[in-house]
Amino acid sequence: MAHIQLPVAPALGREFPGILGPMTFRPETAAPLNELVNILLRGESTLSPGEREMIATHVSWRNDCFFCQTIHGAVAAAQLGHNEALVHKVKTDWASAEISAKMKSLLNIAGKVQLGGKHVTAEDVSAARKEGATDLEIHDTVLIAAVFCLCNRYVDGLNTWAPEDPEMYRANAARIIENGYTSVTEAATATTKQ
Amino acid sequence: MAHIQLPVAPALGREFPGILGPMTFRPETAAPLNELVNILLRGESTLSPGEREMIATHVSWRNDCFFCQTIHGAVAAAQLGHNEALVHKVKTDWASAEISAKMKSLLNIAGKVQLGGKHVTAEDVSAARKEGATDLEIHDTVLIAAVFCLCNRYVDGLNTWAPEDPEMYRANAARIIENGYTSVTEAATATTKQ
Repeated sequence: MAHIQLPVAPALGREFPGILGPMTFRPETAAPLNELVNILLRGESTLSPGEREMIATHVSWRNDCFFCQTIHGAVAAAQLGHNEALVHKVKTDWASAEISAKMKSLLNIAGKVQLGGKHVTAEDVSAARKEGATDLEIHDTVLIAAVFCLCNRYVDGLNTWAPEDPEMYRANAARIIENGYTSVTEAATATTKQ
Repeated sequence: MAHIQLPVAPALGREFPGILGPMTFRPETAAPLNELVNILLRGESTLSPGEREMIATHVSWRNDCFFCQTIHGAVAAAQLGHNEALVHKVKTDWASAEISAKMKSLLNIAGKVQLGGKHVTAEDVSAARKEGATDLEIHDTVLIAAVFCLCNRYVDGLNTWAPEDPEMYRANAARIIENGYTSVTEAATATTKQ
């Protein structure tokens, strides 16, 4: 049971899973948070949406947040040719995953951010730059990792529930890819007001 | 030196301190992040602005982020009758600070969120409720703590610089209290484009 009373999703007969629970409880704060996530994960970037979702997924796995690692892992997999095995590897052992050397250097930085900002060293950053990472890509990697340190704590700090069925995450991932994070949350919030 | 090349503040001859560095580098992501912080720390609430800044300050101290704990500490102190000694106590030893039992129970929750969402227990939450905390206050405490786990990582993960002079933080705190977080960042960004 969540630590606070969250709105009930009519279709589920209980609160929405994961971050949708507190986001439907407090739409005022959900709006800018979703906007931030939309810009970082879906906005214009020289990193593909799948690459950015890999960063979100890896950090959420490091923070042991089941909901976030599973939903963002499902979005990442769908964007990477439905390659769930690759996403699993990126979560648990990116060093031996079949991804670019640049992505590995960015995942290294993201993992340091998860531990705490001061863990990122000049060497980590210069290694990424050597693999072709730009300042904007390094900035966005740090900010995506930091944002998921927020989201993971929001989801687990309020003790929200998470479905176990992977099919549910695949279906939600398809909706997110089609409509974006803001729209999915707003649709959920609207059903609680009917 | 910051890990990436940040815009130079004309008045300083170097980049803006702390979070203003990356925020002036990437105004697109600064806007929703500032909006989120404005709602949480300055929006309508049954917690006073000073109480909410105490939560931000305590979490930033726990994350050892000098810039964030000093600027939010200065804002909190100004809002609490210029009581810098109280803010120092809230950072390092809130259990014996002269604050309400409800604030202590919320700072306890915030400290657990800093460690990770799963550290917050049903007992922590029920203790806060016993001291009169509402679900919205508990929600906002968790989200403020999570947001500062983001901001602290953003500031230190990019290795931004921080002034040492407390007078600079007091002056910036006065500007923040007068104009809000969004406006202070937008004014800084505008000077980099002249």
